[in-house]
Amino acid sequence: MTIRTAKGRFISLEGGEGAGKSTQLRALATALRARGLEVVETREPGGSEGAEAIRTLLLTGGADRWSPRAEALLFAAARADHVEKTIRPALDRGAWILSDRFLDSSRAYQGMGDLTDADILALHRIGSGGFLPDRTLFLTLPETEATARTRSRDGDAADRIGGRDRAFHLAVADAFTRFAQTEPERVRAIDASGDADTVTERLLLALQDLLP
Amino acid sequence: MTIRTAKGRFISLEGGEGAGKSTQLRALATALRARGLEVVETREPGGSEGAEAIRTLLLTGGADRWSPRAEALLFAAARADHVEKTIRPALDRGAWILSDRFLDSSRAYQGMGDLTDADILALHRIGSGGFLPDRTLFLTLPETEATARTRSRDGDAADRIGGRDRAFHLAVADAFTRFAQTEPERVRAIDASGDADTVTERLLLALQDLLP
Repeated sequence: MTIRTAKGRFISLEGGEGAGKSTQLRALATALRARGLEVVETREPGGSEGAEAIRTLLLTGGADRWSPRAEALLFAAARADHVEKTIRPALDRGAWILSDRFLDSSRAYQGMGDLTDADILALHRIGSGGFLPDRTLFLTLPETEATARTRSRDGDAADRIGGRDRAFHLAVADAFTRFAQTEPERVRAIDASGDADTVTERLLLALQDLLP
Repeated sequence: MTIRTAKGRFISLEGGEGAGKSTQLRALATALRARGLEVVETREPGGSEGAEAIRTLLLTGGADRWSPRAEALLFAAARADHVEKTIRPALDRGAWILSDRFLDSSRAYQGMGDLTDADILALHRIGSGGFLPDRTLFLTLPETEATARTRSRDGDAADRIGGRDRAFHLAVADAFTRFAQTEPERVRAIDASGDADTVTERLLLALQDLLP
């Protein structure tokens, strides 16, 4: 008798606010579980006990609590813990891991001011051995639609990271577009406009070659 | 009328447990204040509000709470905050800063396992622009005397960082000796044996060229 061990896959979802990452991550997890796969839903910063403690440090306090340099190091520390304690063990037992944000968020948000993309990649090499997702799904939305979706949310979702200005968010969108162009095999830009079910279908299509 | 602004200096004290760093730091601060200098006493990890919060993460929990990689990133994040919020502002107003440990502790403790000295220096470049002390005083003690001093302390001072074995502490001592040989202008090995006043005199002598 042969025991077939499924190959685990690590998928990150990226995209600006209002692109529907959280909704799509849940829908994608449901669709993958319906195919008999074990799915771990996780997020950054966080996803492990230590990384969630670092998340609390990162997301509380005033906008100037952390310098961009200290912030980048804290994100890299949280990611190292997340990879070691949550992602690698799940991969090793054949699970699929869906993470709401991963390295590319740090590259887009922190790697274009005081720090460069090379700095963020150096931190990731030192912290996590340069470990990358099997696929990164980057949800794209015309700016007007993203703004409308964000505004329609109940209450004010802004926190230390979210509460930044429009020019900054445009620069972040540009960065993600560049990653998709530079690493077309790993990073796929997915149209996130239209109804949620249609978007989930597009995401599944972008994972088809990885599915058992 | 000419206003003379004193030049601030940044001094770090290093050395294994039992070498008398804390006692000597206080004595040195007193001696420098007696010369009319403003002196800031600080420590690592910690020394600023954010860095002290990171210190709490680092020093609590089980020995395996953080991987060596995550630990090195957390130390570098704390150091970036310490340099930006405490050390640079004090230097800018002409104060002397005495820090109980700094970068060389990370190099000695974290840069000789999973990570290399080059990795620790890269983290320091990204986090703090490679900022170095004007002088690093490395307190040396014959191993037998250090052990005796540590044992004579009330209670058990071991924490996540302190509670490690003898071979590890010898390797750390070797690392500090190497730093003193490689950077003789910055890093000075100081004999910490004998009575406390004599050691303080040796430390002041090693700072003589920096004093106003």
